[in-house]
Amino acid sequence: MSEIASIATIEAAAARLKGRARVTPLLSSPFLDEIAGRPLYAKAEVLQHTGSFKFRGAWSALSALPPDLRAQGVVAFSSGNHAQGVARAAQIMGVPAVIVMPEDAPELKVANTRAFGAEVVTYDRAGRQSREEIGARLQAERGLTLIRPYDDAMVVSGQGTCGLEIARQAADRGVTEASVIACCGGGGLTAGIALALEATAPGMRVHPAEPEGFDDTARSLAAGSIQANTGPEKGVWDAILTPAPGEVTFPILNRLCGPGIVVSEDETYEAMRLAATRLKLVVEPGGAVALAAALFHGDALADGPVICTLSGGNADPGLHARVMAGLAA
Amino acid sequence: MSEIASIATIEAAAARLKGRARVTPLLSSPFLDEIAGRPLYAKAEVLQHTGSFKFRGAWSALSALPPDLRAQGVVAFSSGNHAQGVARAAQIMGVPAVIVMPEDAPELKVANTRAFGAEVVTYDRAGRQSREEIGARLQAERGLTLIRPYDDAMVVSGQGTCGLEIARQAADRGVTEASVIACCGGGGLTAGIALALEATAPGMRVHPAEPEGFDDTARSLAAGSIQANTGPEKGVWDAILTPAPGEVTFPILNRLCGPGIVVSEDETYEAMRLAATRLKLVVEPGGAVALAAALFHGDALADGPVICTLSGGNADPGLHARVMAGLAA
Repeated sequence: MSEIASIATIEAAAARLKGRARVTPLLSSPFLDEIAGRPLYAKAEVLQHTGSFKFRGAWSALSALPPDLRAQGVVAFSSGNHAQGVARAAQIMGVPAVIVMPEDAPELKVANTRAFGAEVVTYDRAGRQSREEIGARLQAERGLTLIRPYDDAMVVSGQGTCGLEIARQAADRGVTEASVIACCGGGGLTAGIALALEATAPGMRVHPAEPEGFDDTARSLAAGSIQANTGPEKGVWDAILTPAPGEVTFPILNRLCGPGIVVSEDETYEAMRLAATRLKLVVEPGGAVALAAALFHGDALADGPVICTLSGGNADPGLHARVMAGLAA
Repeated sequence: MSEIASIATIEAAAARLKGRARVTPLLSSPFLDEIAGRPLYAKAEVLQHTGSFKFRGAWSALSALPPDLRAQGVVAFSSGNHAQGVARAAQIMGVPAVIVMPEDAPELKVANTRAFGAEVVTYDRAGRQSREEIGARLQAERGLTLIRPYDDAMVVSGQGTCGLEIARQAADRGVTEASVIACCGGGGLTAGIALALEATAPGMRVHPAEPEGFDDTARSLAAGSIQANTGPEKGVWDAILTPAPGEVTFPILNRLCGPGIVVSEDETYEAMRLAATRLKLVVEPGGAVALAAALFHGDALADGPVICTLSGGNADPGLHARVMAGLAA
């Protein structure tokens, strides 16, 4: 895929996603406005098919493949949400999907990926074979096409459809100037939203939100060049723990976004609790960092309304129970 | 309010609610289809303002009052969801609201009702003064208008707007024949939906869902006359524990709905867990009985798709945590 992500590729993706992906609601609560000290809107991507925005990018990428190539099947690496998005899109399109997942991926996500008809190949993070080697072998042996989780113009374009909806739904509420905060791993959602808003809501500025210890994007934006995470590889925010911003995504982020906002584990859990009590939504840790940033880091934002993504809701039920009971903070 | 609820009063309510109430999404999950053994759609009223469908009826009733009467304020009895709906509608309209709540109403609901600016008057269920006496005194002393939770044509008409949306959203998915299950307390939502569907989706049949021990509506429909609950007054489904079908609602239910479906406490909790893991929604016990009926009592339904309301999401966080952890089943 040599095309470059742009408003044109996002609009083309939106046409392919029409009737396939959900238009997710933009929600609000006077209780959250009060905490944030400003109007707060939450883009409920937890209500997207497969429980995260990843279905958008997956559908966009698979539907952009030449039919004969698509028919041979696809392969993806993912700890869970991209896995489910690709597996479900492939299932609906009737093509094979192989998903390479770490052995310690959350149980619910592995089970769901299998239930969507995908073949799951697990690997040991500390083992001899990297996921890239496993993927390369599968590509070569079976003619599968690799669907990258974020460094792919068609994936970024699919995530950008979330930005088109934000612009339209905010305008319906009279909001054209706002800070927009996106949960950020490799930057696919953040870059897609930023490109969409550049064209359709130029009064909005996009900020990536990341967890403490995994602030590669914030540091990369501050430095103006790609910086990697150097700390632990694991954390409760499994959905967004990527090693560094992508080669496709970072130039977009660097041109359009920032500064990045970094939130703590406690802030993440409090955002999860508030999403449940005030918006009635189950949000996973990696999907709650933008809400945490909007609620607790308003000092990093321009005045005016804030819009945040609730990117994923595939929380482990036990973890969600502990968070709701106040035992995981 | 001497008007009788009809498709005309529902359409008039829809016009008054436009831009004020949310159009809530109709959601689905292949996992729930599999359990139900048929296509299942869930009307996510937990995403309505104040976390339940009650905001529809409250806004409908308050907006239908003559302005001079409305300005004097309103009074309502409620254990929580009608309370919040009336309080929030009154707050937005800038009129006083007094809510009479039992002392043992769920904490979150009492706190929210106060936070929406209402004056909360509590009473002891076992005490000397009935809530009716307290309400009558408040009406007389302050000129407040009583907003009944279900036995009011304007309230039923507001709840009916949920039915208009169900008809439209189902038709968008190609569904015109279906079983529709509504969580049923006094019958306001069930009656409103039934009236709306009679006119806009005559191929749909409405069934009330109730919890074991509080099956007054199911028994009333079977008998053809109003039957009261005779068992315990309390249960985990606080939102829908009414003594008997209403004088306004029962004739509508009797003409258009049934048979009623009765679900157990365990089925309620399993529906809450599935709503959280499969739809990413927090649903309270009283709001989960229709989903429980759709998932586990398909034998009571005609063949074909089933549509259920998720009526309310104001679950006590501690209870929700216990349910998610499997400790409350």
